[in-house]
Amino acid sequence: MGWLAWERFRCNIDCKADPENCISENLFMTMAKRLAEDGFKNAGYEYIIIDDCWMTTQRDSNGILQADPERFPHGIKYLADYVHSLGLKMGIYQDIGTKTCIGYPGSQGYEKIDVDTFASWDIDYLKLDGCFMDPKEFDTAYPAVTKHLNKTGRPIVYSCSWPAYQVERKMTVNWAAIRDNCNLWRNYGDIQDSYDSITDIINWYAINQDALISAAGPGAWNDPDMLIIGNFGLSIGQCQSQMALWAIMAAPLMMSNDLRNLRPEFKEILLNRDIIEVDQDTLGIQGRQILPANQGQGVEVWRRPIMPVMQIANETWASFAVVCWNRRVDGMPFAFPRQLGFYGLTHPGGYYIKELFTKKEYGLMKADDVLTMQVNPAGGVFMFKATLAIALKDFDPHKAKESDLLRKRFKPAVQEVKRRPKYAKHRALPEDFDGADGGGSDGSFFALKFLAVIVVLAIVVRLAGFRFGPASLLRLSRRLLK
Amino acid sequence: MGWLAWERFRCNIDCKADPENCISENLFMTMAKRLAEDGFKNAGYEYIIIDDCWMTTQRDSNGILQADPERFPHGIKYLADYVHSLGLKMGIYQDIGTKTCIGYPGSQGYEKIDVDTFASWDIDYLKLDGCFMDPKEFDTAYPAVTKHLNKTGRPIVYSCSWPAYQVERKMTVNWAAIRDNCNLWRNYGDIQDSYDSITDIINWYAINQDALISAAGPGAWNDPDMLIIGNFGLSIGQCQSQMALWAIMAAPLMMSNDLRNLRPEFKEILLNRDIIEVDQDTLGIQGRQILPANQGQGVEVWRRPIMPVMQIANETWASFAVVCWNRRVDGMPFAFPRQLGFYGLTHPGGYYIKELFTKKEYGLMKADDVLTMQVNPAGGVFMFKATLAIALKDFDPHKAKESDLLRKRFKPAVQEVKRRPKYAKHRALPEDFDGADGGGSDGSFFALKFLAVIVVLAIVVRLAGFRFGPASLLRLSRRLLK
Repeated sequence: MGWLAWERFRCNIDCKADPENCISENLFMTMAKRLAEDGFKNAGYEYIIIDDCWMTTQRDSNGILQADPERFPHGIKYLADYVHSLGLKMGIYQDIGTKTCIGYPGSQGYEKIDVDTFASWDIDYLKLDGCFMDPKEFDTAYPAVTKHLNKTGRPIVYSCSWPAYQVERKMTVNWAAIRDNCNLWRNYGDIQDSYDSITDIINWYAINQDALISAAGPGAWNDPDMLIIGNFGLSIGQCQSQMALWAIMAAPLMMSNDLRNLRPEFKEILLNRDIIEVDQDTLGIQGRQILPANQGQGVEVWRRPIMPVMQIANETWASFAVVCWNRRVDGMPFAFPRQLGFYGLTHPGGYYIKELFTKKEYGLMKADDVLTMQVNPAGGVFMFKATLAIALKDFDPHKAKESDLLRKRFKPAVQEVKRRPKYAKHRALPEDFDGADGGGSDGSFFALKFLAVIVVLAIVVRLAGFRFGPASLLRLSRRLLK
Repeated sequence: MGWLAWERFRCNIDCKADPENCISENLFMTMAKRLAEDGFKNAGYEYIIIDDCWMTTQRDSNGILQADPERFPHGIKYLADYVHSLGLKMGIYQDIGTKTCIGYPGSQGYEKIDVDTFASWDIDYLKLDGCFMDPKEFDTAYPAVTKHLNKTGRPIVYSCSWPAYQVERKMTVNWAAIRDNCNLWRNYGDIQDSYDSITDIINWYAINQDALISAAGPGAWNDPDMLIIGNFGLSIGQCQSQMALWAIMAAPLMMSNDLRNLRPEFKEILLNRDIIEVDQDTLGIQGRQILPANQGQGVEVWRRPIMPVMQIANETWASFAVVCWNRRVDGMPFAFPRQLGFYGLTHPGGYYIKELFTKKEYGLMKADDVLTMQVNPAGGVFMFKATLAIALKDFDPHKAKESDLLRKRFKPAVQEVKRRPKYAKHRALPEDFDGADGGGSDGSFFALKFLAVIVVLAIVVRLAGFRFGPASLLRLSRRLLK
């Protein structure tokens, strides 16, 4: 989660004509301050990331990249120090080819120098684009940078554009290699400031969801690109749909907007804690489209398994977040009454239902109960969380918040994945949760064991009253199973 | 100008489940009250119009249409009386074929009965749709209803769907007959709640603008369909673009939205007096696209000649409203610096320039002066009025409002056109204003004479201090030229 310059500020380098909006130290310091002071940092937005157009057109005599001296007069290290002083993390952009997409010096032939430079500047995140190199070379070029990154000894989140250019050329994508080497990766074309762009991305994710869901898991994420909430092209409802669907897709939630001029209705969407919690859910399972719009009278349904989960007699049951997205454009809000079973919410103990934009609680509902919500047209959504009641059997929603129990915010253990690819195995987990039967009976034995350990640990922790976060639980589970 | 139920409320007849939003007496009375009390009436929004689904499924034993007795318990006359008591006018919907589009009884075979019924209910506006009749029959069927309307003796604005269905079937359209018989007419498919729908309509108007501009003129208007501002599918900038472009197209400005729940930013757009004044300009000349987006770096330019105009030595000069519409989706506001001459604003005396959303005045500018405005991406617009300085030579913008001079709001003389088709000739005027050279030297002699008379009259009236509106001026000019 964080803020990334590209979609909103592009390659605007004209600081004379447009000093407040050009790619400069000033812009990133201002946005970092807004991120820290306006509630974004507290909600989890943590990385402030430079995109293209920060460099000079030539490396220095030692082959080292230079920040443009007029726009970044104190250099990148100074900027990173400032960002760190606010409790945030600093990201930067480079390209794996001979040039960046706009034409500044690329990394090819300078991979180690560049990575070492970034580490020396205390960079925490690298977006490595894929222009000006044949995508066939990516399968060796991106992992080579992974090694350089790991050798720095500094935890640097690694954002790859590896599959994006291969998908564009209809090449076969080695998802296993990508997830073993990158922490997040762009799969598809750049987002633009339009609802058409949003729908295009979501359509592509739906078509390719089997491969994408298998690839993703804790520390390794598909990146459907930036949040454009608060910009020029989306209505309020369409902003809600991006937030909801990006959370279902376990997207990294990088905003690209002008935090200085954000209307309150957009800020409210970006700071929706319930939805951020879905996005950051500790299971790290990417959601899927379970009903296309043409089978739902224009309403498309997406679903993601989330915590808390329960393992009983070889059956695994999850809680779910569900988004119903209205793609109709015929003026009126549309009633969408469905039994919980329709969404695959079939546990006999039922689920606690809460809508995440209105915060309305629907109480305990079971598979046969009908949930009726109105959903606005032209890209409106409703999004509800269905919390598995049996996992919360002593949980009284009127007395406690769920977040007091199992659902502490997850800090992704990004470096673990990058440095220890063996953890990729754990990402086999997602498939086991992903059937409409809520089952795991046909899942891998490892996944079941793993889950059982998590659940037992969670119960022990809860009983003992330890202040253990789910991230720690995941780590502990992994260690016990090694 | 007014409010029309269809786009927002459709054929929602379920008053049990949705009493506040179903097509009913209650809905129209509520919307009429909002129109009257919330500033819309004062801004010119006057007609409150029922669309499909107001009837019972059968005529009564005398062949008379009946309003649904549960949803309109007091009948339509009662509703019209209420609407009139608020100083507004009442519109209703019927279809020229055997059925309405949804399937209620159509007018075919009952044309005279229906028109007389509407007149007896004190209806002021009839939208006559074109479902369930072969569009080949429209060329006789729509004029037949014109005759029935005129025979009632009641001024009833006549909104035809005549060309819309013919265009859909790629038939040849008799625009001259349409403008002689109808006050406004739909040309193209129904608007939907989406920006794609807006762009689709504008694209179609641009492609067909020569025929459409020739057909339009005072009392006879192309109807690009309802304003959807305040609904679910448009961002704020996209709402501004609809308002601006609809005004350039001299559209009838019928809102279809929920006036009970209109966010203030949308209400502000709908009540923008400067833009409404452009829309209602007394010349009644529909504007045209003068630069397509692919020739303007993604910015499309539209222009409409407006009052005040000046006739000097056989040359006619007009003022203009100009819209620059940014179809780019690349994140940043876009600077669009152009000389006034680029827009065809070439009079050596120059123009007073005012942007109509920000209300910023740019003072007197001439053809060589560069006007630089930023235009937001994703459907943003700027819209400026260029008031011909020579027509206002004693006009000091710091001392008087232009509206104190020539630009009183126009009440369209809709009935005149319907009843006296000979006035259609006067609509030859538009073409004479429509060249980028601002000229009229190649226009018809009649048009020049007509304009000269208007201008002379306007000056006389101003000097004499009479309270004469431009509508009266137009009428007087016509009489003098008969």
